[in-house]
Amino acid sequence: MENFLAKAKFSSRIIANLEPQTKIDIMMQMADHIEKNRDIIIKENSKDIELGRKNNLSYALLDRLLLDEKRILSMTNSIREIANLREPIGKILDGWVVPSGLKIEKVSIPIGVIGIIYESRPNVTSDTAALCFKSGNVCVLKGGKEAQYSNKIIATLLQEILSRNSLPSEIISLLPDNSREGVAKLIKMDRYVDLIIPRGGEDLIKYISQNSTVPVVKHDKGLCHIFIDESADIKSAINISINAKCQRTGVCNTMETLLIHRNIAKTILPKLKEEYDKHKTKLLGCEKTREIINIEIASEEDFYTEYLDNILSIKIIDSLDEAIEHINIHGSGHSDSILSENYSNTQKFLDEVDSACVYVNASTRFTDGAEFGFGAEVGISTNRLHSRGPMGINDLTTYKFKIYGNGNIRE
Amino acid sequence: MENFLAKAKFSSRIIANLEPQTKIDIMMQMADHIEKNRDIIIKENSKDIELGRKNNLSYALLDRLLLDEKRILSMTNSIREIANLREPIGKILDGWVVPSGLKIEKVSIPIGVIGIIYESRPNVTSDTAALCFKSGNVCVLKGGKEAQYSNKIIATLLQEILSRNSLPSEIISLLPDNSREGVAKLIKMDRYVDLIIPRGGEDLIKYISQNSTVPVVKHDKGLCHIFIDESADIKSAINISINAKCQRTGVCNTMETLLIHRNIAKTILPKLKEEYDKHKTKLLGCEKTREIINIEIASEEDFYTEYLDNILSIKIIDSLDEAIEHINIHGSGHSDSILSENYSNTQKFLDEVDSACVYVNASTRFTDGAEFGFGAEVGISTNRLHSRGPMGINDLTTYKFKIYGNGNIRE
Repeated sequence: MENFLAKAKFSSRIIANLEPQTKIDIMMQMADHIEKNRDIIIKENSKDIELGRKNNLSYALLDRLLLDEKRILSMTNSIREIANLREPIGKILDGWVVPSGLKIEKVSIPIGVIGIIYESRPNVTSDTAALCFKSGNVCVLKGGKEAQYSNKIIATLLQEILSRNSLPSEIISLLPDNSREGVAKLIKMDRYVDLIIPRGGEDLIKYISQNSTVPVVKHDKGLCHIFIDESADIKSAINISINAKCQRTGVCNTMETLLIHRNIAKTILPKLKEEYDKHKTKLLGCEKTREIINIEIASEEDFYTEYLDNILSIKIIDSLDEAIEHINIHGSGHSDSILSENYSNTQKFLDEVDSACVYVNASTRFTDGAEFGFGAEVGISTNRLHSRGPMGINDLTTYKFKIYGNGNIRE
Repeated sequence: MENFLAKAKFSSRIIANLEPQTKIDIMMQMADHIEKNRDIIIKENSKDIELGRKNNLSYALLDRLLLDEKRILSMTNSIREIANLREPIGKILDGWVVPSGLKIEKVSIPIGVIGIIYESRPNVTSDTAALCFKSGNVCVLKGGKEAQYSNKIIATLLQEILSRNSLPSEIISLLPDNSREGVAKLIKMDRYVDLIIPRGGEDLIKYISQNSTVPVVKHDKGLCHIFIDESADIKSAINISINAKCQRTGVCNTMETLLIHRNIAKTILPKLKEEYDKHKTKLLGCEKTREIINIEIASEEDFYTEYLDNILSIKIIDSLDEAIEHINIHGSGHSDSILSENYSNTQKFLDEVDSACVYVNASTRFTDGAEFGFGAEVGISTNRLHSRGPMGINDLTTYKFKIYGNGNIRE
């Protein structure tokens, strides 16, 4: 493994200095090559599906695993879209002249070698490979075992194009040891690996965060809130509250807890219940909520729970301060929204809620690379440092200072 | 300790939302208060000096420890300067409107709770406290034992001003357990601490990087290079080479290795030796160097050594590619400079040398917060991620997205 990672590190200097057009050309070849070989991909994918059936994977998981012609075309479209994004490397992020006369430029550069640990969907393999390639990074991919044949053939096809362009295969590669021990080794290899991005279950992310000596940008849970302030527009508040919970329930930017100001609760709660009932949403509420609508009780535990399901906890609160406090204590710093027509309250909420994405009068469901206009996304970071919120290709960069002198010496 | 850090975390929400002018006012009070109490500081500092003498600290270390009237005034000047820097919080770093109509703002915010581990000089205590306060962060300071009385009185005086302004004392505090065990606990408290900045010896930094579950921005060694290309201006090259080594030898941005293109070596080496001899610099060289000037041999080990002393390793190399390769393998990614009049070579060097600061025709000694125009600095980061190179108050921030809607729901 160390030998492999040393080669990966060495390769990172090669890809970091490829011309933008060369990268685009190679990515177009990759997309074409995958399309040409879609029959082989489907054949390899069927081995994963068969094994998955034998291992009694759920229908939902099997569906996420499956690659058909349409899904392969969507993979290659995504590669082409990423190829055509604005070049993220060499951007001048800042620049100034200092009294000594030096011209300083702060310029974006690739991070280096990025280890990405993820599950299930094989399209993540081609997406993240394309995102890393476009941003000049080497990626070491560790996909789920359940998608091993699919991931292997996708990586092999991408490597064939690398080799056709005289580039080392380590630029896009699968972790050689695809086991838990392999991951345990990888996250200690800070000499060669510059960043680990874990996407997946809470336990995996916790294990990696606690044990990695490589910096980690984690893609953790989303326990998102909406707070309906007393001045909220009723119709819009109902619209948004339904959208944030019901438009899709199994994703991280879905609302899990609805906070309602006591002065609007009696008006809005019965109407909300009517709408949620239509969507078969299971509602749990605090004692005060249950004085207004007849639903089951929400425990303190519920307010800490990311359901990833069609379930919603509701709490009536007395003030904006209490709402902010509740969110900062119970939330996961992902996405939270205030629905309000009161200017001062919206400003206070935006300033004091300590989350990556803080909304006014909008659904939390917009926290997403595509919705943010980033094109494809690496994921949604729940880190405070380096990258926060939706991560696009620009978040796969760091910077250096280029300093232009004219014989300058320090006095 | 956990109780203390929980309070620190809670306090971080208070300081994060102070008005800019309030922060300035409080910092001015801090500076005044320290000036008024300079006799007490000098008295406490004398206890450290006395203990240091008993423990046979070197003259250099004792000098770094010493606080006199002049040094205290320089401390308070620094607090006032930091107070008057442009407000680093709430800066709109980027902003755009997406097709759904949402207005997205990327806004700078404080990091939260920052643990800073450092040695010797007590002015670091007031400097870092001021930098953290200005950038809305809580700081937990762990200074060296040798400066314990000085650090304690400085922190106490700052806390007196916090309390006078009804702010919790945890906003600026010393780590309650000032031992190795205290540090070991601190770096595992990722629930409460958002960033650890270690400044100090290589062993300390290595220990923290390997064991911290809190993100670390390290302030590591500087093994800086200058490469004299064949087209370099001889006079300017000699000037810069002397400045980069001799202007100050014990600091991280000093040159440790000089690389010289073989086609200019015979011309420049004798002149360089003459100048270095005037500065009593000890020169070590590769075999080819020693064919031109009579100096001791440099081992492969020497090219990996940060001397922090008036010693220089010299190597003759055959090409720009070899120079870049040598720097990327032996360097520490800190600061490296090319001296050249060849346009293509300077561009290639700037692009391919993988260091935080890459110079053309200038001394590496400029890698410094003040020289970069940042005002006071937290230090010089040798991380690849989050912050690279000189760190000012803007590097003590992260960001959130503020998103302004108008009833938007996701389709």
